[in-house]
Amino acid sequence: MRKGARTKQQMIDTAMGLFQKQGYRATGVNQVLAESGAPRGSLYFHFPGGKRQLAAESVAGAGEHVREQIQMILDRSADPDAAIAEVVEFFCAVLEGSDFQSGCPIATVALEIGAGEPDVQQACGAAYESWLQILRLRLIGWGVERDRAAELATVALSMIEGALLLARVQRDFGALRAAGNQLALLLGAARAGA
Amino acid sequence: MRKGARTKQQMIDTAMGLFQKQGYRATGVNQVLAESGAPRGSLYFHFPGGKRQLAAESVAGAGEHVREQIQMILDRSADPDAAIAEVVEFFCAVLEGSDFQSGCPIATVALEIGAGEPDVQQACGAAYESWLQILRLRLIGWGVERDRAAELATVALSMIEGALLLARVQRDFGALRAAGNQLALLLGAARAGA
Repeated sequence: MRKGARTKQQMIDTAMGLFQKQGYRATGVNQVLAESGAPRGSLYFHFPGGKRQLAAESVAGAGEHVREQIQMILDRSADPDAAIAEVVEFFCAVLEGSDFQSGCPIATVALEIGAGEPDVQQACGAAYESWLQILRLRLIGWGVERDRAAELATVALSMIEGALLLARVQRDFGALRAAGNQLALLLGAARAGA
Repeated sequence: MRKGARTKQQMIDTAMGLFQKQGYRATGVNQVLAESGAPRGSLYFHFPGGKRQLAAESVAGAGEHVREQIQMILDRSADPDAAIAEVVEFFCAVLEGSDFQSGCPIATVALEIGAGEPDVQQACGAAYESWLQILRLRLIGWGVERDRAAELATVALSMIEGALLLARVQRDFGALRAAGNQLALLLGAARAGA
């Protein structure tokens, strides 16, 4: 990777870590520059749109990373129940590896930003939509009817997002495991057309 | 309400609004004092523990408000399906009334705070637990076996929390309605012991 691209990537990685740890609004661009070791002037050189562009690109990068992880799990799982169990274990590992500080890399930013930052909001929406898309396709592949697959993908993502929130507050994997159990029931019913 | 109590309540209401709108870390106590019209010195008079105590009491107040709303809906609903539909409509109204800026009053704070603020985290946990408790009791009242009621209550809360997050990002009620539909399926299966 060339030096400029490396600096840019370091700024994105640093920004995403800070957004997750302390929130989007509480993170100043000077802190991102200082902690990433980027020279002053790098911000507007790499991100002419400033903090909002940095945030939008960071969200997009984090979204792509999670999408790849989910895709990999879905591709290697023998059956739907195994896939659900593996997704649950993936997020349990994220929680455990961060002492329950990290969950969904996008959720904190998504909740903080509002109508005033449409570019960041769109980046959050695009990331979630990319996850929904692979879930929908896989559900259809597992025999779920198209409309129901769309609804169930949305609900599966909601369950995981909400469970990650509860798990962080409760410092316990219980909510994630409960989501996995009940999701397996819903998927079974959907595949049977019940 | 006496003047001191009124000032304290105004600070709590202002803080909660700002935490929801811009996040916990990005909200300074000076902004809370200014926007609530509270005299300087009020912070440590009413909240000797400072910003963290203010946050913990704000979260507790918001949690109690939501708990009362859910309890009222559950008490007046004719049957489980009506209760789910009413809870969904309640949160759709919260989203609509705030132009999709407000959802769960606690989620943003819950995601931002970490191990360094155990008092605020405990307040978030206690609020969620108070909601879970009334959900569990009602599920048992509807004939769901005790362990399954505990799991289903956790999943119901996760679904709603996650759906509120998605609905805000997507600026669309779809995720909430999808959660209601699939929750009705899970509740039906749980009541039938299936």
